[in-house]
Amino acid sequence: MEKQNRSGTAGKVIRCKGSAVCRNPGEPLVIEEIMVDPPKAWEIRIKILCTSLCHSDVTFWKISIGPFALFPRIFGHEAVGVVESVGEHVEEFQEGDMVVPVFRPNCRECRDCKSQKGNGCSIFGDKLVAEMPRDGTSRFKGMNGETLHHFLSVSSFSEYTVVDVVHVVKISSEFPAEKACLLSCGVSSGIGAAWKVADIEEGSTVAIFGLGAVGLAVAEGARLRGASKIIGVDLNQEKFEIGKKFGVSEFINPATCGEKKVSEVIKEITDGGVDYSFECIGLASLMEEAFNSSRANWGKTVILGVEMHNTPLAINTYFLLRGRTVTGCFFGGLKAKSDIPILAQKYLHKEINLDGFITHEVNFQDINKAFDLLLEGKSLRCIIWMD
Amino acid sequence: MEKQNRSGTAGKVIRCKGSAVCRNPGEPLVIEEIMVDPPKAWEIRIKILCTSLCHSDVTFWKISIGPFALFPRIFGHEAVGVVESVGEHVEEFQEGDMVVPVFRPNCRECRDCKSQKGNGCSIFGDKLVAEMPRDGTSRFKGMNGETLHHFLSVSSFSEYTVVDVVHVVKISSEFPAEKACLLSCGVSSGIGAAWKVADIEEGSTVAIFGLGAVGLAVAEGARLRGASKIIGVDLNQEKFEIGKKFGVSEFINPATCGEKKVSEVIKEITDGGVDYSFECIGLASLMEEAFNSSRANWGKTVILGVEMHNTPLAINTYFLLRGRTVTGCFFGGLKAKSDIPILAQKYLHKEINLDGFITHEVNFQDINKAFDLLLEGKSLRCIIWMD
Repeated sequence: MEKQNRSGTAGKVIRCKGSAVCRNPGEPLVIEEIMVDPPKAWEIRIKILCTSLCHSDVTFWKISIGPFALFPRIFGHEAVGVVESVGEHVEEFQEGDMVVPVFRPNCRECRDCKSQKGNGCSIFGDKLVAEMPRDGTSRFKGMNGETLHHFLSVSSFSEYTVVDVVHVVKISSEFPAEKACLLSCGVSSGIGAAWKVADIEEGSTVAIFGLGAVGLAVAEGARLRGASKIIGVDLNQEKFEIGKKFGVSEFINPATCGEKKVSEVIKEITDGGVDYSFECIGLASLMEEAFNSSRANWGKTVILGVEMHNTPLAINTYFLLRGRTVTGCFFGGLKAKSDIPILAQKYLHKEINLDGFITHEVNFQDINKAFDLLLEGKSLRCIIWMD
Repeated sequence: MEKQNRSGTAGKVIRCKGSAVCRNPGEPLVIEEIMVDPPKAWEIRIKILCTSLCHSDVTFWKISIGPFALFPRIFGHEAVGVVESVGEHVEEFQEGDMVVPVFRPNCRECRDCKSQKGNGCSIFGDKLVAEMPRDGTSRFKGMNGETLHHFLSVSSFSEYTVVDVVHVVKISSEFPAEKACLLSCGVSSGIGAAWKVADIEEGSTVAIFGLGAVGLAVAEGARLRGASKIIGVDLNQEKFEIGKKFGVSEFINPATCGEKKVSEVIKEITDGGVDYSFECIGLASLMEEAFNSSRANWGKTVILGVEMHNTPLAINTYFLLRGRTVTGCFFGGLKAKSDIPILAQKYLHKEINLDGFITHEVNFQDINKAFDLLLEGKSLRCIIWMD
């Protein structure tokens, strides 16, 4: 028998007043009334408290052809909310729990989830464009009955959303909602890449290509590990001042390097290259520069950016033979269920600076302003508050 | 004052009866009488006991244009010998010591040599074509006074050679000479790549592209670490039987894969890809296949082959983001001075199979036969004995 919830909505379709629907690629989102199905088995329905815009939303929002172009669609994958109701077999969550949805699944049962290494899930995989992961269908309908597509298994640009339990992490309800929202994707990805993937040691030199929220979170992770030099690379000169708050000690604007490649400049100021380099943009040419900026013998390059044009990364194999390494990660190599609580704890103990990432806040009605701010390079994270 | 040695040759030019000089690229070596200068400061003169032929000798032997084409030249870099005399400031070695020369320098003083990571030397670098590393001159002269070039700082195809102390490791004189010779390059490179660079764990799956001595040494390293599956890839079908002795459990001949790529076959038989893959040939296309054969989440590809055409390695960045890693190494990531004695010890304790690598033995006069055997894929290592 279904367990009824306090609001009496469990098991029923919710007519959800506020969902930001993307009807056509690249067009402003439209706030619409939609219908949100109740959660099926191993799913929970979440009332979103606040959400924020990540570059991956923008990337997919722009795609107009091919299998990734799915419209109408509800974007958003960085958020925090409260459980409204749970589907059958759900024991991990209950009504009222504060939760962070995460695009990277973590079933905790498969060989990959059980391993100490990596953060993929061999059962739920990387279904970047999927609807609900278990049955491939949508929980969203327009008022005319049309199907609205999900995004990254989260779809947080909606008052209510339905998410599979493998994509949700419980968090203490005392945790500030807007800070929890940051842990849902970008900031965790950057810190995770610095701590778990690169495993930066004290005194290391670091170069970060792209000082958006992810790149700055890498800097924050590097700063906390005691890096001796954190070089930020960005075309936006204003990012140097912002970066200083996160530990960026040197700044290179590629536009002012003249004939020199950024990697040459980095090699000059680090006596042969950095110990760790990170690409946080998604361009193969920058990934190559990041690799070429790393030192021989133990230099490690971590790719975080999703390549925008599907261009392969071209690597000089002689540079590899000299002991360099290149790797990559989604979500900073973090296993959501076990690692997000650790990051949350570190924030509460004032060991991580999350506050600095929130540069703007808007009401949900003004969600398109968050797009403008990100596209203009003015915001790191703009918190979008549900009413 | 110079310390005289037993044979009275210290400090004097030695007229060396047997040196295999390469006069022109790709041509058979010519056994000639040459003059070998005494060692300068921080150098030692070695009487070679035996040497063997490695693919890198063949690679450089063939090069006919560009800065790497240096002739006449004395090749050879895998060997063992006895110290005949030492130059000024040499305290680590003395006359009569049994020593293994190594192309990879290890000064033990620089930041890189002192680090636990990697095996490069930031003072002596990677001077692949250099003469003696400190003054850039040669210690070899033809009887007509012409300069003969060194190779990889070793030049072991000569009864006597001069090597810098950073390129030499002392070994117990009770160690069998021909086994010590193997530790000088190829076999150490393979075992080192498996143990130090990949750090293979028990139960891992492994794919090795190229079953020459280096690839088979990777297999031996993987076998000793308890790998559950060791897949050998080679166009030479006979390598499967040979490979079995070193732990190769599965064999793929790319010529019999039809439309399928080797990486697809490997993914099929390993449920998604191997934990570790190794490229031991030196072709970017195979490096890419090795990378594509590795599993998501923690798959690691180690490049050992020196790319023959300087073609860059093209990597699918989405595969990287899913948690794969690619790295490379010279000399298996081993620090010669500290790691060769460890391998030697393991051989004496019967923990490593070295014997299986020696498939042929010839006298120095027949050195060109060693080239034929290697080029025809008939030998793993052919020990070339000085008289």
